[in-house]
Amino acid sequence: MNISALLTSAGINIGVCVLLLSLYSILRKQPCNVSVYFGRRLAQEKIKRKDAFHFERFIPSASWIVKAWETSEEEILAIAGLDAVVFLRILIFSIRIFSIAAVICLLLVLPLNYYGQEMHHKQIPSESIDVFAIGNVKEGSKWLWAHCLALYIISCSACALLYFEYKRVAKMRFEYLTRSSSSLSQFSVLVRSIPWSPEESYSDLVRNFFTKYHASNYLSHQIVYRSGTIQKLLSDAEKMYKMLHHYGSTSMEQNCRPSFFRCCLCGGTINSFKMLPCEPVNPNLEALGSSLKDEECRAAFVFFRTRYAAAVASQIRQSSNPMTWVTDLAPEPQDVYWSNLCIPYRQLWIRRIATLLASFVFTILFLIPVTFVQGLTQLDQLQQKFPFLKGILKKAYINQLVTGYLPSVILLLFQYAVPPLMMLFSGVEGSISRSGKKKSACFKVLIFTIWNIFFVNVLSGSVIGQVENVISNPRIIPSELATAVPRQATFFITYILTSGWAGLAFEVVQIFSLFCSLFYRFILRSNDVSFFSALSFPYHTEVPRVLLFALLGFTCSVLAPLILPFLMVYFFLGYIVYRNQILNVYLSRYETGGQYWPIVHNATIFSLVLTQIIALGVFGLKESPVASGFTIPLVICTLLFNAYCRQRFNPIFKSASAEVLLELDQQDEQSGRMVEIHQKLQSAYCQFTLGLHSPIRERSSAEVLIEMGRQDEQSGHVAELDHQLESAYCQLTMNSHPQCLCEDSNHSGDADSIQEAVEMKPGEEAKQS
Amino acid sequence: MNISALLTSAGINIGVCVLLLSLYSILRKQPCNVSVYFGRRLAQEKIKRKDAFHFERFIPSASWIVKAWETSEEEILAIAGLDAVVFLRILIFSIRIFSIAAVICLLLVLPLNYYGQEMHHKQIPSESIDVFAIGNVKEGSKWLWAHCLALYIISCSACALLYFEYKRVAKMRFEYLTRSSSSLSQFSVLVRSIPWSPEESYSDLVRNFFTKYHASNYLSHQIVYRSGTIQKLLSDAEKMYKMLHHYGSTSMEQNCRPSFFRCCLCGGTINSFKMLPCEPVNPNLEALGSSLKDEECRAAFVFFRTRYAAAVASQIRQSSNPMTWVTDLAPEPQDVYWSNLCIPYRQLWIRRIATLLASFVFTILFLIPVTFVQGLTQLDQLQQKFPFLKGILKKAYINQLVTGYLPSVILLLFQYAVPPLMMLFSGVEGSISRSGKKKSACFKVLIFTIWNIFFVNVLSGSVIGQVENVISNPRIIPSELATAVPRQATFFITYILTSGWAGLAFEVVQIFSLFCSLFYRFILRSNDVSFFSALSFPYHTEVPRVLLFALLGFTCSVLAPLILPFLMVYFFLGYIVYRNQILNVYLSRYETGGQYWPIVHNATIFSLVLTQIIALGVFGLKESPVASGFTIPLVICTLLFNAYCRQRFNPIFKSASAEVLLELDQQDEQSGRMVEIHQKLQSAYCQFTLGLHSPIRERSSAEVLIEMGRQDEQSGHVAELDHQLESAYCQLTMNSHPQCLCEDSNHSGDADSIQEAVEMKPGEEAKQS
Repeated sequence: MNISALLTSAGINIGVCVLLLSLYSILRKQPCNVSVYFGRRLAQEKIKRKDAFHFERFIPSASWIVKAWETSEEEILAIAGLDAVVFLRILIFSIRIFSIAAVICLLLVLPLNYYGQEMHHKQIPSESIDVFAIGNVKEGSKWLWAHCLALYIISCSACALLYFEYKRVAKMRFEYLTRSSSSLSQFSVLVRSIPWSPEESYSDLVRNFFTKYHASNYLSHQIVYRSGTIQKLLSDAEKMYKMLHHYGSTSMEQNCRPSFFRCCLCGGTINSFKMLPCEPVNPNLEALGSSLKDEECRAAFVFFRTRYAAAVASQIRQSSNPMTWVTDLAPEPQDVYWSNLCIPYRQLWIRRIATLLASFVFTILFLIPVTFVQGLTQLDQLQQKFPFLKGILKKAYINQLVTGYLPSVILLLFQYAVPPLMMLFSGVEGSISRSGKKKSACFKVLIFTIWNIFFVNVLSGSVIGQVENVISNPRIIPSELATAVPRQATFFITYILTSGWAGLAFEVVQIFSLFCSLFYRFILRSNDVSFFSALSFPYHTEVPRVLLFALLGFTCSVLAPLILPFLMVYFFLGYIVYRNQILNVYLSRYETGGQYWPIVHNATIFSLVLTQIIALGVFGLKESPVASGFTIPLVICTLLFNAYCRQRFNPIFKSASAEVLLELDQQDEQSGRMVEIHQKLQSAYCQFTLGLHSPIRERSSAEVLIEMGRQDEQSGHVAELDHQLESAYCQLTMNSHPQCLCEDSNHSGDADSIQEAVEMKPGEEAKQS
Repeated sequence: MNISALLTSAGINIGVCVLLLSLYSILRKQPCNVSVYFGRRLAQEKIKRKDAFHFERFIPSASWIVKAWETSEEEILAIAGLDAVVFLRILIFSIRIFSIAAVICLLLVLPLNYYGQEMHHKQIPSESIDVFAIGNVKEGSKWLWAHCLALYIISCSACALLYFEYKRVAKMRFEYLTRSSSSLSQFSVLVRSIPWSPEESYSDLVRNFFTKYHASNYLSHQIVYRSGTIQKLLSDAEKMYKMLHHYGSTSMEQNCRPSFFRCCLCGGTINSFKMLPCEPVNPNLEALGSSLKDEECRAAFVFFRTRYAAAVASQIRQSSNPMTWVTDLAPEPQDVYWSNLCIPYRQLWIRRIATLLASFVFTILFLIPVTFVQGLTQLDQLQQKFPFLKGILKKAYINQLVTGYLPSVILLLFQYAVPPLMMLFSGVEGSISRSGKKKSACFKVLIFTIWNIFFVNVLSGSVIGQVENVISNPRIIPSELATAVPRQATFFITYILTSGWAGLAFEVVQIFSLFCSLFYRFILRSNDVSFFSALSFPYHTEVPRVLLFALLGFTCSVLAPLILPFLMVYFFLGYIVYRNQILNVYLSRYETGGQYWPIVHNATIFSLVLTQIIALGVFGLKESPVASGFTIPLVICTLLFNAYCRQRFNPIFKSASAEVLLELDQQDEQSGRMVEIHQKLQSAYCQFTLGLHSPIRERSSAEVLIEMGRQDEQSGHVAELDHQLESAYCQLTMNSHPQCLCEDSNHSGDADSIQEAVEMKPGEEAKQS
């Protein structure tokens, strides 16, 4: 490939991007697409639709770019949480380090490569790309010190930037912990593997254990129930409600819907919900309690009076048998992955090993479709192997289809299957939080991406044969990579153009959601916007993607510097696009609190060391012992830097320090907020939810509903069902928005008092009254 | 080697062993050797010497064997602590598993090997050993399922036994924690990396920090001082005391020595020590406090009111910067490795990496003397390489010396250098406790031993060439081992005879100590028995040795079952000898509380998996796909078993559970022992010690002495030195025995009250008065 071909390819891709971005700037102004492009704002800010027609709606504009650019980090932190900021910090870090690399490599390394050996240079546009790569430097050249110097500058500045970023993220995490001081999860501990006892229920066991050993700090607890039966009852009730609702009176619609909106939008009074008949429900709940005993899991949320006590209980081994009374700090209520809480703790280690093996095998076996697809482009070989294909493949259009279209479709389909599959693996693994599951999936996808995009392409040809060679003889890795990476630089540049640039453009246009929306509106003729609940940010696909491009940048920077300008464009565009998406589209329901950064740090260190090892191989091939000799200490220093950072920053991302927790506790106790927090804790974690309308479906006192459903099924009082379900539903939706619950505390009206009555210890009840 | 040669060799070794053991049974009855053979009892039980001559002293007897056999595990636990019991459990486990292996392999595998292929069998004594090994089974034999079955039985019973042993040791550790309820270390936390402040001293910083965040549980603290200057002053003072003592009056001898014995032997009243002039010392100590400020380290012992509080403080990260206020549970007072406490915490990670690398490099480079020694036995090659040697080596006696004697001497010298060097590495690593240092050295020596005795011998020949081959091509490992291990079985049998049996005999005779004792008595004409302070048990050499023999047993059991009877003899003899040594010779000053067992468990699992991999290779070479196929699930199951055990038992060896600690605390508070413990804590950790006489030299209020030494140096009142030093020394020796301090609490007389006055908080002083 020569320069003009590369520029043509870049031009085409720029054209596609500009077209798509313009299309986006028009589409986003159409009121009908508001659910596609403003999912987050629709859910959180309740923006109003403007249906009025005006001509400006059809003129492309760059206002969204300006807005995305101007939004400050603090605003993003407030809107989308720490994880989003951490994600943007990856892009900022990449822009910074590759700016430095671009300056060094384009000014110093590129000319040296170009004039690396005596040859007749053609005009630059018709010059091959390879002339600009390190392959053009003649063997034993004295100018290789320049490449070594560039490597030193890039490595050192990357380490320095990494250090400051890690420090910055650690500081942000510290602020996150102090800022989220009203976070109820800091007071809660998830206890698993409660030992079985023939006499007592798990609930009694938990109460006895914690009142015995943590009497001064134990507040209350909440048992996790087996979801199967109860969730089934709940969904039956919901189905019935829907049925009644559909055939029922419009008066219900009037009674319920407006009040829902009044509650969540304007935070109005909630007196309108007093229609729930409290008195008959209370005794029923107690009866429910005894019948629910069989459904108890061996897990419970235990609430403590102070953050420090909860942290202590979660970090100290409770029982002398490490397999019982296992404690972990609880995730945020909306982050709890309920279905995993009932997994027996004894299964977890084997699940972890099994999913590790499964994802490893999947990552390796992905070679098979890749080689198959590579085989499709060489039809002759395929025909030799499978003679029966000869008849079919003789037809010209099938031949074209198979060679030109099928390979990329198959690869794409396979690649799209990866993130959901990794999410599935992470779910099976037994993660107790959604954010933890996503983080684990992110790590798996990262490994998968680096292996299958970088290594498999680098070692392409007969992939499996090469890999086998390398595995059976690890010493040839540097020289093998040194010959393969510069050879593949052209491919990586085109990969950045297509998968990088175009991928960002497709991301901003949200092709899939747009088509879904069009399908609903024009084929199904439905106008129900609420169908599109806002998506949460797919960290598990985007973090690995950005890190892959950074890996490509690092490894190619010194060897084939031409990649850098294209990469810079990608990161700049990505910075704008992702900011826009975070601001408008994705809703952050749960977050890890910046725990993606250690993954990013480790991946970057891996990229750096890989770069250095490849450079070592290249210097060896070019017979420059000085440059090779100078590279070895660089590898060692980078690894030592990593060891230091692990020591210095890693603990911050694992647990909060006593200092912080105790100071937060003191502040809250002095300001008197502690009592309020203790009250909120009683109803913070609610296991059973309805699938109706509200995108955030935790925090509801669904037990009321279950009991009603069951009672009515038993007594046959279906006629009464309508009224009861209606009021229960109102109560549920009332609680469905976390902001509602947090903002006004007089909210915890009927529902919470019922919840409290169920969960409160007898002693406390007396105290309160 | 044939059977008769093997039996001859065994006979010679049995003869040597019987001779040495008889010699031991005589030597131990000689009163002059009491310090060599009864070091522990001399130090702990103060056995009396009987100098009376009677004839029985010169008749060998087996009474010591009977006594060692009859002592119960509880007695050993009481005398020598948990580590000794754990060490003996290794031997018991080995005896059990190799009994099973011997029955299976000698009855099932051995005949199959012997009749493995059609051949003319000679008479058994002149039969080669190889005929009894798996090498004699013909390829593709259907009888290999028997070997596979034997492997299954050995692996499964090893896993079962390992599980029960782990459970038993875990239970013992649990009892150790509850039994050592008066252990002061459970109340103490070692704080390192106290942040520097220009205004406050480290002592003030510690007090402020812990009164701020742990007000309800903080008791007091004790700063660690830089040892250099103070230790120098102390040794100066000691030297001066010795000088005075040497030229001084015998009245001092009478005043001091007898009272020391009265105190420690009969636990008599301590009123006789009231001669210390308390009043003038007190203000001096305060002056000392201010002048010592410059010598403060960034480390301190912090004492808490309850065990639970100390455990919490040690496990929760204290500061938001993980590199400051680093807390660990303190070691026992006599276990503290003082000189490492002042190492800046920031250095630790690099020290750890450096020692890891150093011990790795040392382990690998040990190949060089081995190959050199192997070269010595082939003088022809050596002469070709170094022609100048020809002249020297022509002389017959030099030739004999070089080939016959030098190799083993060089190897032995090198091998003796290994444990001290590994101890040095572990010291540099920065361990805070002596037991931790020894445990770390044990692990290093284990790796070293397995690599250099097992692998290097197995892959012998051109060692480095082979290793290089294996490293560059890991897939050939099983087949490589499969050919090499049976070939080396003969060598391993003779290794067990010489290094194993004879080693045990030499261990019991204590050759080195005996010669030292003889040297002192007959050459130096000194009768001072106290020179020989009792040794502590060398776990770092003995645990790896026993584990190496177990590794040899596992790997050879199925392949060359003839090794098993010899191994059984070794383990039985070892069981008796080590019990005897633990009871009589070695004094356990400090212990890890059974933390050697996880190392033993992991080493045994490693041996098992290695055995299975070798068997896999052998079955492959013998072309038995069924047996190979059945071995693979065995490897996987063994690894899974290990993963389960790690999950189930490992946490027990890392920290105590809240349940245990809280119950211990409650018991002590109810019985009123807490106040007493709090008082003892104030003087438990004493940094500066004298090198005089007492083998246990911690627990002394040496600061009194330092101040005296310094004062007198300044004021020139050397005349007064005599009296002051004398009384101080009495005070020190008075406290020098832990049992003295623990048994009667009215002990904490003058010395402790001074200590308390220095360390007590102002508030507390008021409270107590």
